[in-house]
Parts: sequence; C-alpha cells; structure tokens
Amino acid sequence: MNTLSVDLGERSYPIHIGADLIGRTDLFAAHIAGASVTIVTNATVEPLYGEKLRAALAPLGKQVSTVVLPDGEAHKDWETLNRIFDALLAGHADRKTTLIALGGGVIGDMTGFAAACYMRGVPFIQVPTTLLSQVDSSVGGKTGINHPLGKNMIGAFYQPLAVVADTATLHTLPERELAAGIAEVIKTAAIADATFFEWIEANVEALNRCEPDALAHAIRRCCEIKASVVAADEREGGLRAILNFGHTFGHAIEAGLGYGEWLHGEAVGCGMTMAADLSVRLGHLDDAARMRLVALVCAARLPVRAPALGEAHYIELMKSDKKAEAGTIKFVLLKSIGEPLMTSVPADALRATLAASV
Amino acid sequence: MNTLSVDLGERSYPIHIGADLIGRTDLFAAHIAGASVTIVTNATVEPLYGEKLRAALAPLGKQVSTVVLPDGEAHKDWETLNRIFDALLAGHADRKTTLIALGGGVIGDMTGFAAACYMRGVPFIQVPTTLLSQVDSSVGGKTGINHPLGKNMIGAFYQPLAVVADTATLHTLPERELAAGIAEVIKTAAIADATFFEWIEANVEALNRCEPDALAHAIRRCCEIKASVVAADEREGGLRAILNFGHTFGHAIEAGLGYGEWLHGEAVGCGMTMAADLSVRLGHLDDAARMRLVALVCAARLPVRAPALGEAHYIELMKSDKKAEAGTIKFVLLKSIGEPLMTSVPADALRATLAASV
Repeated sequence: MNTLSVDLGERSYPIHIGADLIGRTDLFAAHIAGASVTIVTNATVEPLYGEKLRAALAPLGKQVSTVVLPDGEAHKDWETLNRIFDALLAGHADRKTTLIALGGGVIGDMTGFAAACYMRGVPFIQVPTTLLSQVDSSVGGKTGINHPLGKNMIGAFYQPLAVVADTATLHTLPERELAAGIAEVIKTAAIADATFFEWIEANVEALNRCEPDALAHAIRRCCEIKASVVAADEREGGLRAILNFGHTFGHAIEAGLGYGEWLHGEAVGCGMTMAADLSVRLGHLDDAARMRLVALVCAARLPVRAPALGEAHYIELMKSDKKAEAGTIKFVLLKSIGEPLMTSVPADALRATLAASV
Repeated sequence: MNTLSVDLGERSYPIHIGADLIGRTDLFAAHIAGASVTIVTNATVEPLYGEKLRAALAPLGKQVSTVVLPDGEAHKDWETLNRIFDALLAGHADRKTTLIALGGGVIGDMTGFAAACYMRGVPFIQVPTTLLSQVDSSVGGKTGINHPLGKNMIGAFYQPLAVVADTATLHTLPERELAAGIAEVIKTAAIADATFFEWIEANVEALNRCEPDALAHAIRRCCEIKASVVAADEREGGLRAILNFGHTFGHAIEAGLGYGEWLHGEAVGCGMTMAADLSVRLGHLDDAARMRLVALVCAARLPVRAPALGEAHYIELMKSDKKAEAGTIKFVLLKSIGEPLMTSVPADALRATLAASV
C-alpha cells in the first residue's frame, strides 16, 4: 500500500492506494468518530463491494446503514441527492455521522456534496471504485450535482477525511470506463509532466490490460500531481484551473449529448484533442506534439472525433462553463507536452477548431 | 451609520447599520468586483425596495437582474432555491457574479446557500429588511433550506462580503414580524448580557413602537454579541451553540405545526420560556429569573404557551435537531440571565416541561 498526503492545513487528508484495501478495518477506524456511518453507493457497486465494506466496518461497533442510488451520470441530480438526505434524516443521522462514498465519480461527488450540506457539514470518506475516480475526482474536494443547463453547476469545495483507493476494484470495471479513467491519466501528464506522458506512451497497452503495477504507478503519479496543484490552489483561484485541460470542450459534449451518453472521460479525451488543435492554430503548440496526444488518446481507445452538435450550440454551451467570465470562455491550452497555459481565444480560431473536430 | 466588523480572518466582513442605507451606492461599490449582479428578493419586498436598490447599483454600470421568489418560510425549499439557479444559469451568471439578498431571514438563508453552491461559491451581500434578519440571520454565515423532516437541515456555512442593515425598512414590517425579531433580541441578551437584558425590560415598549433610536441600539448590541460569538466559533463546534437558546423547542414547534404557521421568532419566544422552565426544574435557574423572562416575552407580544403537539411528537422532533448526537438531545439552558449552559437532560424533567408548557 502507498499512502500520499494532500496538504491542506487543518483539512489535510491521506490517500491510501493498493490492492484489497476495502477490507482493511484499520484504514477506516482512524477516521470515524461518531456512533453511526452511512454508506452511499449505487446498484452496480453495492452487490460487488457493499458486503466487504460492511464487514470491514463491523468490528468498529458503529450503527451502519446503506443508501443505494441508481447508477449513472444521468442521476447526478437533486432528486437523487435528496434520497441521501431523506435516508439521513429518517435514520436520525447527526453531525458526527460519517458518510462513506463507495463507487465512482458520480457517487463521490454526490456523497461529498451531501456531506457538505447535511446539517451544514458532516465527515466523509471516499472509497473510489473506478480508475477515473481514483486518479481524479476523489482528490481535490470538488463535490456537486449537475443542472440541466450545466455540469457540476451546483456544488461545494469539501474535503474528505481520507481516500481509500482499492485497485482490486478495477478488475470489475467495464472496458469503456477503464478507458475513460485513462483519459484523465493522459490529461494529468499532458498538463504537468512530460516524463510521465512518455511513460504512458510506453505503457498504454499495460493500462488497457488493467495490469496492477502499471495501474498503481499511474494512480500514484496522478494523485501526487493533483494533490500538489490542489494544495497550491484549493478553491480554483488560478493554477488549479489547468486541471480542466480538455474539460471546456468535454463538458460541452456531455451537456450537448445529454449527460451519460458519453462518459466524462470519453468527452475529456476528445476535448483534449480539440484543445490541442486550438493550441496549434494559435501558434502555441507544434503539430508533432498535437499528433502525439491524438495518437495516445486513440491508443487508449477513446474517441477523437467530436459529435456534431453545431458550432453555435457548442459555443453557447461553453459560455455556461464555470471558468467563463462575463461571457468570455477561458481555455486551457498547451505550449508543449507538460506545459499548459490559460487564455481566452479569438472566435474565428475556435470556430475553425470546432469545424475541424467533428 | 454604525459599522461593525465580524472578525473571521480572510472571511471578515462589515455590518453597516443605519437609516436609508439601501440607497447608498458607496456601500455596494466596494464589494462588487464582477460584471453582473443578481438581486434575490420576494414578492412582498420587491415592490417596497427593489427599485431603490437597483437605483443605488445603477451608477456602478453592472448588468443587474432580479429574481423574485414567493414570500414565506413555507417556500424555503429546494424547488424555490432552484429558481435562483435556473435564473443564474439562464443569464450566464459566472463565478464573479454577486448575489444580493434583499429581504428577511428566508431570503438571506436561501440566497446565501445559492451563493455557496452556485459554481461552488460566488460572492454575496446581505440586505436584511426585517428586524429578525438584521439582528440574527444576517450575522454568522449560516445559510440553508428546510427539509420536510427538519428546519435548516441542508445548508452551508458561508460568509457574505458585507451586510447592509437599513433600519428604515422596519417601518413597513408587520407587527407580528417586528415582535418575532424582538424575540431574538431578548434571546441574545438572555445568553450573554444581563445589562442589555435590563435595557430591553426598560425599553420593550419603545421597540414595540418601532422607535428608531431604540431599534438601532438593539440591533447594534445584538450584532456585536453575535459577531463575537461567531468569531470565536465559526462552525459551531462549541460556544456558538449557545445562540440556539430557545431553538430546540422552537424548531420542534415550527416543524410540528408546519413551517410558516408560527413565525420563527414566535417559536423561539415560546421556546425560551420552555427552556427556562426546564432550567428551573433542573435547579440551574431561580424561578424569579424565569418569571422575568416570561414577562419580557409577553411584553414583546410573543406567545408563551406552546401548541399541543403531544409529548412523544415533541421528543421525536427534537431528536432530529442538528445539535442532537446519537439520539441525545442537547439543550441550551440558563444558570442566570446572561449565563447559559449546554447540557443533555433527564427524560422525566423534559416531559414535565412539555406538560407544563402547553
């Protein structure tokens, strides 16, 4: 097992990475102070790991309840979130009740937001069971739900007490979801670490085959990079926004197709190639670097052609992006592999990228 | 104009108290950085002060929009909150859009919670227009909405950039709402300042008549006391809970009757007399002090007899209180006027108070 620390002063927390960690009572014992625990999971994950987690918690003598939500990004909404509140209130959960998110990014984001809001804040622990959530959404404290007009528009910055990333769970992950996780691995390297990018180029087949050592290295390096970015800018005042490379286009794809049609990581994979195209058009990036990125996204079995939503609709969707200010869309572009820049862009270049990408 | 500061480090903010402040462009100019402002108000307050506030903002050259919600505690729910999000997203509000809460406690709590959650946090300013919100809910950063199973169960601690308390707005306040505000004035004195309590005893008629000097003194002293308590304990780890004197019983009354049946301040007024009764039964408070409190609550034209909800229902409702832990209800009681204590209580004493109070 590897343990990293996300350094956020009094909100610092550990990330444990390794195989078969869900069964480790000791990893949970240190972080559960109250008399009760509520596990929030979904209908896909509960039959796979629910019992294992409850068995790990049993020796602690807490009152443990489980809320099972429907699976999928389409359910990352208020109605589903409210099922968590209903269960907490019906069970007289108090301010010391600990929530445990057992599942992927949707479960983590919703459980974290529920923890942020229930009685104005209760403790929570992340147990991410997808590659995407292990490398990305469980680090950094972003929580929230979608609104019909935009992804993650309603939420909070709220840090977990601990993250327990059990790599054994990835063996039950569908291939599409594994690929979606690799998209965020590629993104993290692209904005921060050219050496790590080269490592992914050399090991992408091992990642596709879900080889444990390759996965463990990728997860650890991604968490390290993300933890250092978040520690420098917890509330996304500046630097942290580089983590959104590929996301402005990606969010537009997700919203335009309807949440859940493409997986988040698939949309980010395609969105990175679009951001690279825009970077080349504006003279920031050379085309050979763009082609390396496109080839790697392809090799990870991710889409590189954008859906035809129409140029005007793309632009309208991107104006609603959280990084937009006064209608000006801000993009994370690349100067080279490993070196991002934040900028607004001329409308004609953006239109050219949209036209070239579909 | 009086200006106090709530001292919370980088989240510190000023409270301006005085007559005709809504028209003061300068008080808003210092706190609006982005290009747009959204005023959130209700159907009662908008015709009274909406135009005045927009006129004050006009010289700043911002894009100003207004969201008008239905009036009343019964609308402090997700559906109504979502109307704020709908309007913000439809208008492409961004992370620098400033929300201004123009109204009483319900508008302040909902607008603050919307500001806390929209894109994970945007700036907001409180313009409280009721006595209750000027003395209480606009200070301390508590925001939120109700759930059918409990009041303010879903929310956030989120501080405004400034509070502008215009005492001239109190002249349009219905008598019942004025009295409900005086309840929180009495509460604040009862838990913190025996001298202020004596001042209220001597000046309660002037407060009932809405005399400007008396109101200004009461608001200032309440804000000072609350600001010092909040500065010592922003997230209600301990000391801050004393501000909930009368609220455990009061919340049960509000929830049991259905939100909006009794005003919050009315329920707190009655709840304080119940907490004083319990304090006497447990030997903490002498009966003469209890009678002073009951007399003052009466003089402020507030109810001192509790509604007959049934003992079991009262206890069930109080177990859902946010201060309860593992089913144990914590009460704020009095040792003397100005001196609170936090404690759990024996079931028989609680039942006796409930029986004696209806």
